[in-house]
Amino acid sequence: MSWTLPQLAELTGAEARGGAGLVVHRPVDFDADDPAGIAFCERRRHLDRSAGVGAVIVPPDLPAGDRPHLVAAHPRLAFNRILEQYHRPPSLPPGRHPTAVVDDSADIDPSVRIGPFVVVEPGARIAAGVQLFAFCYVGAGCVVGEDTVVHPRVTLYREVRVGRRCIIHAGAVLGADGFGFLPVAGKYRKVPQVGTVVVADDVEIGAGTTIDRATVGVTSVGAGTKIDNLVHVGHNVHLGEDCVVAGQAGIGGSARIGDRVRLAGRAGVIDHVRIADDVSVGAGGIAFADLREPGTYWGQPARPFAQAGRINALLPRLADLLQRVRRLERRGP
Amino acid sequence: MSWTLPQLAELTGAEARGGAGLVVHRPVDFDADDPAGIAFCERRRHLDRSAGVGAVIVPPDLPAGDRPHLVAAHPRLAFNRILEQYHRPPSLPPGRHPTAVVDDSADIDPSVRIGPFVVVEPGARIAAGVQLFAFCYVGAGCVVGEDTVVHPRVTLYREVRVGRRCIIHAGAVLGADGFGFLPVAGKYRKVPQVGTVVVADDVEIGAGTTIDRATVGVTSVGAGTKIDNLVHVGHNVHLGEDCVVAGQAGIGGSARIGDRVRLAGRAGVIDHVRIADDVSVGAGGIAFADLREPGTYWGQPARPFAQAGRINALLPRLADLLQRVRRLERRGP
Amino acid sequence: MSWTLPQLAELTGAEARGGAGLVVHRPVDFDADDPAGIAFCERRRHLDRSAGVGAVIVPPDLPAGDRPHLVAAHPRLAFNRILEQYHRPPSLPPGRHPTAVVDDSADIDPSVRIGPFVVVEPGARIAAGVQLFAFCYVGAGCVVGEDTVVHPRVTLYREVRVGRRCIIHAGAVLGADGFGFLPVAGKYRKVPQVGTVVVADDVEIGAGTTIDRATVGVTSVGAGTKIDNLVHVGHNVHLGEDCVVAGQAGIGGSARIGDRVRLAGRAGVIDHVRIADDVSVGAGGIAFADLREPGTYWGQPARPFAQAGRINALLPRLADLLQRVRRLERRGP
Repeated sequence: MSWTLPQLAELTGAEARGGAGLVVHRPVDFDADDPAGIAFCERRRHLDRSAGVGAVIVPPDLPAGDRPHLVAAHPRLAFNRILEQYHRPPSLPPGRHPTAVVDDSADIDPSVRIGPFVVVEPGARIAAGVQLFAFCYVGAGCVVGEDTVVHPRVTLYREVRVGRRCIIHAGAVLGADGFGFLPVAGKYRKVPQVGTVVVADDVEIGAGTTIDRATVGVTSVGAGTKIDNLVHVGHNVHLGEDCVVAGQAGIGGSARIGDRVRLAGRAGVIDHVRIADDVSVGAGGIAFADLREPGTYWGQPARPFAQAGRINALLPRLADLLQRVRRLERRGP
Repeated sequence: MSWTLPQLAELTGAEARGGAGLVVHRPVDFDADDPAGIAFCERRRHLDRSAGVGAVIVPPDLPAGDRPHLVAAHPRLAFNRILEQYHRPPSLPPGRHPTAVVDDSADIDPSVRIGPFVVVEPGARIAAGVQLFAFCYVGAGCVVGEDTVVHPRVTLYREVRVGRRCIIHAGAVLGADGFGFLPVAGKYRKVPQVGTVVVADDVEIGAGTTIDRATVGVTSVGAGTKIDNLVHVGHNVHLGEDCVVAGQAGIGGSARIGDRVRLAGRAGVIDHVRIADDVSVGAGGIAFADLREPGTYWGQPARPFAQAGRINALLPRLADLLQRVRRLERRGP
Repeated sequence: MSWTLPQLAELTGAEARGGAGLVVHRPVDFDADDPAGIAFCERRRHLDRSAGVGAVIVPPDLPAGDRPHLVAAHPRLAFNRILEQYHRPPSLPPGRHPTAVVDDSADIDPSVRIGPFVVVEPGARIAAGVQLFAFCYVGAGCVVGEDTVVHPRVTLYREVRVGRRCIIHAGAVLGADGFGFLPVAGKYRKVPQVGTVVVADDVEIGAGTTIDRATVGVTSVGAGTKIDNLVHVGHNVHLGEDCVVAGQAGIGGSARIGDRVRLAGRAGVIDHVRIADDVSVGAGGIAFADLREPGTYWGQPARPFAQAGRINALLPRLADLLQRVRRLERRGP
């Protein structure tokens, strides 16, 4: 792939400065050593370290001097346009690999691409443009929407429904039994999990993530929500739209998560807890009780961010505080 | 599936009230909108929100008026009977899928059902009634007990032994090498892991969970213990009977966990720590030292629950406390 | 396998005492009941509990009386020599299993062993001595170095490079898309992940661990680093050499981790944070800011270990502290 700077300006809606004769071959990090690379720099300190790069994308208020550059209102977005054009999306050859085991009763659009060792069980419905990479397992009665990409080794237990334009990464498991047991005479008796999982459109699900089927009804993931790797979503959870759930986060059974909620890495939500729209929980924070107001929370238990920050600032002063109280006590009555 | 209310009363040992002519088709959540559904309500506030449901199961002290309902001493248990009858357990067709690769030296009961792309290595022994779903890997010398269900894509490294009536969910890995290394001259030298994993009867293991083989001897999981998704069990751990280990919990190498221990979501136990019978560790709590008394613990490090709760209640008052000490100091001697 | 005590002394460089006629068959734990077993005991309390074992390995300063034993400068290292000889490394038969799907354009050394249902995509290069166990997926353009062992069901997305003598455990996923999204008009737009993952020599990667590909450039793991199960390594992370990363640890995107860093179980590093060489983070600790000095840190946020320990010791005294301040206030001015 190769672009001139004016071509990149046109592609990204940016303004090109300098760089006559420069040919750009690839998007790179600002600190790369690549004269054919283009990077974006939103801050002076990044620009200062970008000398090894052929061209940079900067915002209007960050002058880049006479080196080849693009000026863009949103450098990151301009860079993303280049990434989108540079990217070769993973793609299977058309048709079905001869090793795939596809039940005759499955309803599969002719445009669906199926890799080696894929298993599709009876009654599954797979819409146009879907790609099922090697080793995918699509259980009985599953539904997969248009243009969804299912990377190698994804497991959809029976009756799971996945929307359109979703991306599911390797090793993800949707629809395993929710973790439900009844204590009876000192033993645990299994609560059969007869519900399922429903994933809306434009959802991305990370590698190794598990989303359990509901006891009854559905575990649901709203449209546009993005879930990272090794996340656990319990049974009967309702996760809203346009949420971001980062790596190793966990959501306990029957929790209700609003829209545009952000759970940072390893954040957690306890069973049955409700999280309002537009809440963020910082890394490692665990919501033990409902979070009813939009805003940022942090800690175990999750507290409003400012409060959690104050506590953290004060904790190292505990020893001093104790000393001071001792001194006061020694003063006598 | 369909039941009359008297039929459900007989099935569950409950008493039917009203509902002549009502036909129930399925168990549902109390807040479902389903006139052919039956739900259970243990509290008034759930009953108040259950108007959309055809029938409810209530305890004797929660009057449900003249709507169709069952009165049961344990509504949840009665509901479970219905779930058990409604549930179609996952089931493979009899025999072996022709794509399965099964070593001739494996000892496999004729009643075992084997799905597509299953691999069974030399010397494995698989007992009557076992189901091995697609992509399961049963290593050399493994033993799987009667009626155990192994969902798609489970990996049993060689010589792992699994008991009877176990359920193992997709992506679980039993018997990978324990994490053992010796520092020698600034490098890490692998400690060969020559032990194995032994899982007793009636154990359930969640999706993506990993249970490592022992360095020498065994990593063991006691009868009746239930383990959720994405749990890590280190090498040489001994996990007792009838324990409950929730999602993303972790147990460090050589830890000894008693019977009836409950680890909530993402609870942790450090290497070599011993946990007494009947201990519960709350969500996110990490036991850094032995917990010798039954009871509930919480926090990092895990403390007795009442203590941990007091600390949490007091932390937001730290700033005020500091202010008050300052005021006292200003009083002068 | 069987050894006499003098044979074991020669194997381990230790000195044999007693045990004429004793035949040792296997390495065991010190508390095993196995007269043909040998264990190591570094402490008196272990030796006291080792009566059931045929022979023990002790350091020079721990006298073992007249029972059969070896005296070794480093008992653990001596024991490891025995483990190494006792261990049968997992091994595939030579050649390719007939069910494997290997693209003709892949460059595969004749000595490579390939198990059932392995998929190798176009352009992959697999060096001498590599073993790919059942269900492994080697994406297009991947490179796997000499003598690397890839356990069942490992996923290498395209272009991932793995060094020599690595061990990758079941279910690990290398090269899934990094978790990158741009908020545009209230929705999240995917940032294409066009980089890759590079793993150096002598790295071990645990079961279920995920290492994401870089947005641009590489996510890298340094030589000799050992990673446990269910660890998440975000995109563009640089993890140094000879690090130890224990189970369920997590490293956020673009974090830079030095050499010889130790992350204990479920330790975490936030996006973009830098960790100096020779830092240790205790179990559950999360580094929210750069850790620039070698040493041990703990807590959320991670603090120097001594400070974190002091805070933990003082927290249970908070209630008492509050009482004492109240008493002081009551004294009057």
